[in-house]
This record gives sequence, structure tokens and C-alpha cells, in this order.
Amino acid sequence: MIVVMEPNATDAQVEKVTKYLEKHGFRVNINYGDILKVIAAIGDKRILSPQIIASFEGVKTVKQIQEPYKLAGRTAHPEDTIIKFNNGVKIGGKEKPVLMVGPCSVEKDIKSLLEIANAAKEMGCEFLRGGAFKPRTSPYDFQGLEERGLEFLAEARKQTGLLVVTEVMDTMDIPLVNQYADILQVGARNMQNFKLLKALGHIKKPVMLKRGPAASIKEFLLAAEHIMYNGNPNVILCERGIKGYDNDFSRNTLDIAAVPILRKYSHLPVIVDPSHGTGRRYLIEPMGKAALIAGAHGLMYEIHNDPDNASSDGAQSLDLNMFRDVTKRFNKLIGRIDYDNKNGI
Amino acid sequence: MIVVMEPNATDAQVEKVTKYLEKHGFRVNINYGDILKVIAAIGDKRILSPQIIASFEGVKTVKQIQEPYKLAGRTAHPEDTIIKFNNGVKIGGKEKPVLMVGPCSVEKDIKSLLEIANAAKEMGCEFLRGGAFKPRTSPYDFQGLEERGLEFLAEARKQTGLLVVTEVMDTMDIPLVNQYADILQVGARNMQNFKLLKALGHIKKPVMLKRGPAASIKEFLLAAEHIMYNGNPNVILCERGIKGYDNDFSRNTLDIAAVPILRKYSHLPVIVDPSHGTGRRYLIEPMGKAALIAGAHGLMYEIHNDPDNASSDGAQSLDLNMFRDVTKRFNKLIGRIDYDNKNGI
Amino acid sequence: MIVVMEPNATDAQVEKVTKYLEKHGFRVNINYGDILKVIAAIGDKRILSPQIIASFEGVKTVKQIQEPYKLAGRTAHPEDTIIKFNNGVKIGGKEKPVLMVGPCSVEKDIKSLLEIANAAKEMGCEFLRGGAFKPRTSPYDFQGLEERGLEFLAEARKQTGLLVVTEVMDTMDIPLVNQYADILQVGARNMQNFKLLKALGHIKKPVMLKRGPAASIKEFLLAAEHIMYNGNPNVILCERGIKGYDNDFSRNTLDIAAVPILRKYSHLPVIVDPSHGTGRRYLIEPMGKAALIAGAHGLMYEIHNDPDNASSDGAQSLDLNMFRDVTKRFNKLIGRIDYDNKNGI
Amino acid sequence: MIVVMEPNATDAQVEKVTKYLEKHGFRVNINYGDILKVIAAIGDKRILSPQIIASFEGVKTVKQIQEPYKLAGRTAHPEDTIIKFNNGVKIGGKEKPVLMVGPCSVEKDIKSLLEIANAAKEMGCEFLRGGAFKPRTSPYDFQGLEERGLEFLAEARKQTGLLVVTEVMDTMDIPLVNQYADILQVGARNMQNFKLLKALGHIKKPVMLKRGPAASIKEFLLAAEHIMYNGNPNVILCERGIKGYDNDFSRNTLDIAAVPILRKYSHLPVIVDPSHGTGRRYLIEPMGKAALIAGAHGLMYEIHNDPDNASSDGAQSLDLNMFRDVTKRFNKLIGRIDYDNKNGI
Repeated sequence: MIVVMEPNATDAQVEKVTKYLEKHGFRVNINYGDILKVIAAIGDKRILSPQIIASFEGVKTVKQIQEPYKLAGRTAHPEDTIIKFNNGVKIGGKEKPVLMVGPCSVEKDIKSLLEIANAAKEMGCEFLRGGAFKPRTSPYDFQGLEERGLEFLAEARKQTGLLVVTEVMDTMDIPLVNQYADILQVGARNMQNFKLLKALGHIKKPVMLKRGPAASIKEFLLAAEHIMYNGNPNVILCERGIKGYDNDFSRNTLDIAAVPILRKYSHLPVIVDPSHGTGRRYLIEPMGKAALIAGAHGLMYEIHNDPDNASSDGAQSLDLNMFRDVTKRFNKLIGRIDYDNKNGI
Repeated sequence: MIVVMEPNATDAQVEKVTKYLEKHGFRVNINYGDILKVIAAIGDKRILSPQIIASFEGVKTVKQIQEPYKLAGRTAHPEDTIIKFNNGVKIGGKEKPVLMVGPCSVEKDIKSLLEIANAAKEMGCEFLRGGAFKPRTSPYDFQGLEERGLEFLAEARKQTGLLVVTEVMDTMDIPLVNQYADILQVGARNMQNFKLLKALGHIKKPVMLKRGPAASIKEFLLAAEHIMYNGNPNVILCERGIKGYDNDFSRNTLDIAAVPILRKYSHLPVIVDPSHGTGRRYLIEPMGKAALIAGAHGLMYEIHNDPDNASSDGAQSLDLNMFRDVTKRFNKLIGRIDYDNKNGI
Repeated sequence: MIVVMEPNATDAQVEKVTKYLEKHGFRVNINYGDILKVIAAIGDKRILSPQIIASFEGVKTVKQIQEPYKLAGRTAHPEDTIIKFNNGVKIGGKEKPVLMVGPCSVEKDIKSLLEIANAAKEMGCEFLRGGAFKPRTSPYDFQGLEERGLEFLAEARKQTGLLVVTEVMDTMDIPLVNQYADILQVGARNMQNFKLLKALGHIKKPVMLKRGPAASIKEFLLAAEHIMYNGNPNVILCERGIKGYDNDFSRNTLDIAAVPILRKYSHLPVIVDPSHGTGRRYLIEPMGKAALIAGAHGLMYEIHNDPDNASSDGAQSLDLNMFRDVTKRFNKLIGRIDYDNKNGI
Repeated sequence: MIVVMEPNATDAQVEKVTKYLEKHGFRVNINYGDILKVIAAIGDKRILSPQIIASFEGVKTVKQIQEPYKLAGRTAHPEDTIIKFNNGVKIGGKEKPVLMVGPCSVEKDIKSLLEIANAAKEMGCEFLRGGAFKPRTSPYDFQGLEERGLEFLAEARKQTGLLVVTEVMDTMDIPLVNQYADILQVGARNMQNFKLLKALGHIKKPVMLKRGPAASIKEFLLAAEHIMYNGNPNVILCERGIKGYDNDFSRNTLDIAAVPILRKYSHLPVIVDPSHGTGRRYLIEPMGKAALIAGAHGLMYEIHNDPDNASSDGAQSLDLNMFRDVTKRFNKLIGRIDYDNKNGI
């Protein structure tokens, strides 16, 4: 931790800060400049919030030097985390990127879901995604089928062998969702629902954490840290777009650079969601490809057998014909990336 | 709802959209322009998400015309909501603005809390605020005393008569917090934790909803709508700063204009938090005054008997001497606003 | 400057950085932590960009410690800058806040401008503002009367004694605008038009610099520094709203906290523009008051004798009746602030 | 244009608006809803700013329906613009993507520039970029060699045959830069320097317009419209990153989705700058690839023979070895994209 004192800070103020830091187990160096004094506090005391030091009289700013996400960060855990499933599917590291597809919400009619799941299976996708519990900005929008939706997903898994990704919105629902899901998803608006993160630390199944719509990379990794610190190391990160400057042409700004950044500073797998990340059907293909070539461990995108009559987010779903076309090209790109990985590029 | 078709949209595409709208109870007008066709869909069908219409082929954009927050908005509820407490305190409308003060977190030592509460009482504040459950960005930060903190707050209320505002972070904790609090607070990061909002719709006590760090006014009012739609009309809105372009000089950008905007478009009371809204002690006074003069129904700010040793957010807390000075000036301003309201300005 | 090396940085890499810093006149301290090495570079070398050090191998991050705006900052210039005009008007320090009013654009008809100027004079305003050169997002919008507009402003000054504030958009126009204006304004979209800033450093008249729509406080002060560094110390800062999360209810987010922040860290006067800052007529009064009570040295707002037929920005202009009402209340508030300053608050 | 009236708008208010619209050449339809009245104003009157209608009493909101960028938009100009140079190089449409490389600033030593240019030539790049005039946030940073820098660029062109891209910062410098450059670049902070845009409308050479750090797509296209409206159709758009939520891991958020969005709604070529767009050397490769696969017509990135001693932005420049490696892989990807274009994908 670097503490910069105000130009006119007194010796007594400097001493008060250094005493406090030493009491909390830091080793302290003072660097005397012409105008400013800078205190370097050395030691791995993540427990001490910079906000507290910032409250001392005479302190100008406090800069945290060390990564505050010990478990999610790569420094103390250099090798990639690879999440493995019973059917042999793997996510992370240098494994082949995975495809997670399905409708935004599971609909009342199980036939739709099965038609979608069969198309997904046919195109080589590994995961079926679908919301049974839906976080909706407006209370007047469809809120999801809840348990019945989970049953439908389980039935589709049984028939196709696809693994199931679905959202959990509340600590109370964890036992239920945990029964059905292969990956439990935390939605973007819940990225800092700390009670939910903590509770998901106590289960064993992988958790896919979506980045909040205005979260920094650091906040994102600290949210993952909450889950890991409470006992569950199986966290998958999902970039799904942040709020940008445009509402006319896309819903969010998909931050593709988050992929190589997260891969450099964290060992956790990184998935990209070009459907929510853009809100536009025609952007799924170019942004999905961009994510894959930038190093994503997989894509999650929305497909629907009848997007015009979907109960949510039809505008960002591919219909099944478009899905087959786009996925064929994703698979081709994935093949080339694999080829280059093996043969050097 | 206004549906703008693409320049090259076919008649069949226009018809498909109009049929769908009519099937869902809208009356439809088509406005033929030279280049674009515009469909005006008339009717109060909040249930139909614009996203669904946007998914039809040939649709360029969909613009929602009517306020989607029927209960929180002023159109259908023109008179101000005033929240009344048993001890006669009122929040909202033209009532005298209230002051809510206390430490960020309730600390292990009840003496501190009582010292703070007595100072608050002495300065005429109406509410004691303090976190027993703390949402913390990092799992390594202090997470709150939980039930013991609530007991301390209740003891302080008993001794001073101050009303208690405290945060609830999870649906599971509602019964417990509801026992102790006079106002249950929803934190900014939980503004779109829809399960929590829904569950708070089923209690009777007032809920203070903090605006999310990147929430639009519309998203904020829709979050209030979730609580109201589920049965609880006693919602207080709290502006607490949004993410801006600066991290060096303040933690957030306090959006003072949200006060007159919310007062114009909603009937709910509006509180402002200049402590979280700025993250700097010296900004509490000018920003608190700015909020009051712009029409806030109250302020919430952090005070601590020993900010340098506070377990959280010392940098944005006033010590008790500063608190007395600043609050004296807030009270003076409140008196003038009252005087002007009565005597015309 | 604080240079944090990567955990695995080699001694040779550390040495390369320290050599380079020493060669450029810094005194260097190395602080050895358990994981990271931190180099503190001491010395007032504003000339060395942190970006350059960041490019060395093994460097993790570089944090600039010292304020990079030596002339605009308060550290080396503790007393307030007060701008004085020939007619006795002053802006800055503890002087009475000033009011700058007028139409967004100067219109073709000089009678309108004179009617507006007379109303402004009558209400005690000190400045007439009006655009002769208009920066317009679209080339299809009215671009301003140019020199004829400047002549009209000069005529209004002659008849009323009001001082004139008007925008200069290009280095080529400086000689012309300099002939007519009492204050030359730099628009928000030109805040980082460095050639223009530089050229305005070579004139003597005060320059009012508007904050860019996404500028940080630091970028804003550095823009002022460009003008001052080139020879003109008479810079007035103007907060006019930043891009926020809302387009439905306001055009920009007026950052009122910028006022006390700029007053603490800079000695320059600070004006607030609640017309552009909100884009809504009804917000001018509450936001103007908020700015004044937070310490603004003046307000700039738009008025028009016929806003519905204004050639630009009618939606954020007061008509003359509203102007008189609102300004009466601004003057009352200014009187109270003055009273409190003199009598202690 | 769609004008939504307030729920309580009077018939007289509706009539006043409709009269005004009709007077300005619009055809008007009124759509009566249960609560709101909606006026559809039909006609191609780009000249009438929505802000003016918004100022009428009783108006709630005004929504512009038609694209306000007639020349830059694809509606009235469906075929791609392809910019052609004398040496046969082309940018845009389905042409092979181009590579523009070089140092951020042209340095005092011409040998450096020639070394860089030769490496660029050797790797098959088409353009040499380098700043002779440098927009710098701080006046203490290196401001560029000005004319001498332009001469160096011309010399490098002579020796290598590379075309030259360089920035013009001010209307006064246009004649000079126009003598030397093959493409004149407008920097991101000047994207809304309307006088500069207008003046660049009067030259014939292509202009590369960089997107402002907080510009929406619409503002970006309107800036291009200023150049085109004044007579120069040869505009190249350049995405270079917008301000995001992170300063720790990257300088900007590169908005890759802007590529397919701009290609869909405009006919102009789109270049991406992954150096400024990220501010990190290691991100140039993944983000450059992402841009190419998402449809960019070219990349611009910074290279330097000695980044550690560069006078600006070393941290985002590749050294010549890295440059060769990365460019080899860019060329391979470009070849595959070409192959797929020809053979169908």
C-alpha cells in the first residue's frame, strides 16, 4: 500500500499513519520528496481497507499495490483452472472452446425446448442454457417458469446429453437449482449480491458469474473471490457487455478486451455472451468470432425456435436456421484456432 | 409503443407486426412516411416488452412511449406519498427534511454507537443508520456484526427515541431485520436483486431503495415498482452517487438533478446520501446543502466517534465535532427552506 | 512517481528502470516487498510521462503522485484567483457570485437580443452570453451568425453595460472574437482542442473553459494548464454536465461536486451552467441553487424572449417571465450566502 | 419525428405544435391514445432540431425517427465507399484489410523512422503512421516535431513507397499537412471540433476520423457528416476505444461491435486502432485479430524501434521483433478472411 501525504502534512500526522500501519503488521518505508512524503507499507495485509488509511488527517491518497483478489488472481495460482464435467467436457486453459446455447427463458411448452436442444446437440454444442428464474427490469415482464422450467431443462438433458446452465437469483433457491443445473449462473445484476456469492461458495458445482453492467475488472474478480473464499474454486467468468455510450445501435458494449485481460491476470475460464452483450441478432456472429479469436473459452448465445413469439429477448436470439449457419462458422473458426494451437501460429 | 420499420420493410412484415400488436390488445395506426413507415400501437399494455416487437423482421427500432412504472410514477398517482412513523416523524411531500446519521457499520463496542446516537439526538436528527449486514466489495473486509448489530441499534433506539434505518441484503434475513428496523434499506448493488425487491413487497415497513451505481432513472423507478407491485407502497428513493469519470477526487458522482427529476415524475420521497455519494468527508456539507436546496426530503450521512479506527469507510465519515458543526448549518438551511415554503419565495 | 514492478521482475529490469529515472533527474528509493518491488521516484519532473516508464519490461503499473497541473493547482498557488473587469465586476474567491444569461445563439433579429439584455440588466445580471459561432452536432443545424452576431452582442453591451461572454471555436477566429468579447468561451467539445487552448494562452482576456462531456477533473485542470502554461493566467472553469446513464430525463448529469472539488484543488473561479447541464427548463432553478450553495462563483443559464421559436436549444431556455421569477430567487439566495459569509455560518 | 405530448396536454398545445410542424413542411398525423397523444411528423426535414419541438408547452418527449446522417448513412447510399490511392491501395468494401503502422510521434532522429518504415514495408504494411503534431493531455508532454516531422514522413514514403497517415490538429495547419499526408487524421479529442471538420470538407484527400472517447455511434456518424456535407466524401472511420469502467487494466474499452454496426449503417470504411484502444502492448494482437474477424477494413497500431525511449506512448507500442511476429499472424488471418470471402463461409 502506498500512502501519499498532503504537501503540508505534519510529522505527527505521518507518524500516526506509520504507527497504525505497523500495528497492523506492515513494514513501513518513508520516501521524502521535495513536496510530498510517500509512505510505502509492505506486507500482505489484504484485510486492511485503503479507505481506512484514507481517513487519517494529512493523507492525500492511498494506492493499493497488491492484487486484492488472492484466489482469483494468477499471481498465487499460475496454472489455468480447468473445469471438468462427468461427460468429459472441459472448460478453460487450452481446451477447445465450448458453446452454450438455448432460449433466454424456458417457455411453457416443452416441445420448443426439446426442438432447440436437439438442434444444439446436432451442431455439436456442449451446453443448453435457459432461464427458469428470470431477473426482469420490470415487474410486468415474464418472470420465468421456476421449478417447472428446471424440470424441462432436466428432461432436455436426459434426451440429448447436453449439460445444463441456468440462473439462480436468490440464496433460498440454491438447493433447488443445485439439484437440476450442471452450472449455476449468477446474473449481471446480482454480481455484487454478496450473500448469494457467499452461499454459492458452499456448493460444489461450478458457478458462472456474469460481469455487472458497470463493473470494473477488479470488482469482477473480487466478486469471484467471494465465491472462492467461501469454498468453491469452480468459478467461470462471463463477459456480457457493459453500459456504453450508445442505446440506439446496441444494448451494451461487449468488452472483448476483458478476455485477454482476465486470462492474463486470472486463471479462471472466461466465457463471452454476444447475445446480451449486444442485444442484436446480427451482431452475434461477428462478436462471437471476435471473442473466440481473442481467447474466450466459450460462447453463450441465445437461440429460439420462434423468436418473434419468445416470452423474452427475441431481438437478441437466433432462429434455428440462423443458428445452424452461424454455429457452422463458429465451429470452423474453433477448428482453426485448435489447429494453430497445435501447429504453432 | 412506436414501431419504426426499416426503409425496405415489406408490406407483409408490416402486417405481421400489426397483427401481433392487435392480437395483444393494441389499437394500431400506421403512419406512412417517404422513407420509413411508423406504426403507433395504442393501449396500456405494459406487459408487452418492446424487445419482443424488436425481434420481428423489418423492424428498425421500437420506442416505448408510456411510463412503464405505473405505481411509482406520478401520472396515475399525482399526490405525494408521505411516510409516517409512530413517533410522528414524516418523510415526503412538503414535510420538513429529515436527517439520518450514524456509522457505516455498527462496531463491536456498543458504547460507540450510543455516543453517536446521543450526539445525533442532541442535534435534532430523526434517524440512526448503521449497517449490521455489510455488502463489501472484497471478502477480506469486515462483513458486519449481523444480529448483534441489530440488537445494538435497538438498544440505541430505546435510549434515544431515534428511528432505525438498516440494510437487509438477502431474502432470508428479512424476518430478522424486519423485527428491528424502522426502515429496511436496500443497498445500491442490490437495486436489481429482484427476488429481494419482491420479498420486500410482502412486508409493511418502509423500504429505502438506493439507486444502483449505474442505474438510469427509469431502472431506478422500475426497481421501486417491483416492491410496490408486490404489495408495499412505502418506498423511499435514495440517490447515492453514480459511477462517473473520476476516481481521483471522489468515489462517485452525486446526481443532484435526480432529486427534482424524481420529485416531478414520481410521488415517492427522495433522500440523498452525500457520504457514499462522494466518498470524501469535506464534500458532505456542500453536497448535503445542494441536495436540500434542490428539494431532497432528507439526508443520510455517516458519522463516527473515531473515524480513523472505524471498521469501514472512515474516509467518508464526519467525527462528532465536525458532525455538530455541519448539522447546525444543515438545520439552519432546513429552517430557511421551511420559512420560504410557508412565506413564499 | 511510484513504479510497481511485476512479481517476477528481474533485478536487471529493476536496474534498467532506476537508471532511466536517475538519468532523468529523479532520486530513487526501492522498497522491497515480499511479492512486489516498488520504486519510488522522487523529484519534480512533470516532463516525464508515466506512459514511458510503463513501457519498460517488468513494470506492472506506474502511479503519478504529484499533481501534474502546477499552474492550475492550488499547491503552488494557494490564494484564489480573482478575475477583475473594467466596470468593477469580479469573479472568484469570496466575491459575490455572478450571473451570465442570454440566448443559446444570437438570432437574426437584434431586437430580441436587446429585449433579453434589458431584462438581464434589470434583474442585476453582470454578463450577457450568446453564441455567434455555434458548435452543432449536426451540420444541418443552425451554425450561428458569426461576425454579425458579435456586432449585435457589442451593441447590446453598449446599450446595457453588460459584459459579453461568447464562444470561440477555432484559432483562426480568435482575433475577431477577441475584439468583441469580454470573456472568450471554449466549448465542452473543444476542451481538448489543444491548439485552441495554446493560442488562447497568448491573449490577455479571460477564457472560460467548459468541461468536456466525459472529462475527469484531472483532464479538466490539465486543459486549463495548457492555457496558463502558454501565458494567460485568467482562466475560469465551467462545469456544464457530463454524460451519465440517462437520456430520458436529462441531457447530461450536472456534477455539482465538481464545484467544491475544483475550489479545493484549484485557485481558479468556477461557474456552473445548469441549462446545458440538464437540458431541461424546469431544472435550471433547483440546479442553479444547488450550484450556488455548493460554492459556485456564478451561474450561466439560457434565456430567450421566445424559446419556442429559438433557433437552438429552446428546451433548456427560460422565457423572460420565468427568467425574472427564477433570478429573483437566485438573487435572494446569493444575498443569504453573502450574509452568512460576512456573519459566519 | 414523433412528438409525445404530456398526459394533461391541452388541445391548444397540440395544435400549436402541429401548426409549427406543418409550417416547416411536415405532414402530421395525430394518434390519440387513452392517456397520451402522439404526433407523427412525416417528412425529410433534417434541418429542424428535435430540441426546438421539445421546448413547446405540453410536449413530453420528441423522438427522431430518421437517421440524421444522410450522407454518411447507408440508407441513401447503399453501396460501400472504397477509397483508392495512386499506388493501387484500396480501403473499404470487400478489399483486403490494410495495415497502418508507425510510431506514436515522429522522433528527432530520422534514422528511427526509416528503420520502422523499412520493417513495415518488409511485413507488407500499406501505410506509415506517425504524429508530427501531437495532441497531449498535459502541456509538459512532448508536442511533436511539426513541419520537420512531416518532412521525415515524406522522406520515409520516398524510400519505401508506404503511404503516409498523419494528424492535423487545427484549421491553420491543414494546408501544410495536406502537402505531405496521403490521409489526414482527426484525433479523438477533435472529433467534435466542427470548424476543423468543416475545413476538411474543402480538401480532396481522404480524412480518417477517430471516434471521440465518449462519442455515441450517432455522434460519430454526424461528425463524419460534417466533413461530407462540406464537400469531401472520402471519410474513413476509426474506432479507437471509449472510456469504460477500468483504468487499472486498460486505457480504454475498444468497442469491437462498432465495426459491424458501422458497416451495417454506413458505407464508409472502418479502421480499428488496438494501440490507443487498449493502451497495452500485449493486447494489440488479440484485439487486432478480433477487429479483423469482426469486419474491420484495416488496423492501425503503434510500433517503435526503441519503445522504452519513445517520446510518447511506449507502453502501447510493439518493438520491431514483436511487430514482425504479430504482423505475420495478422497477415495469416487476413489471408484466411480473404479465402473465406472468395470461397464462401
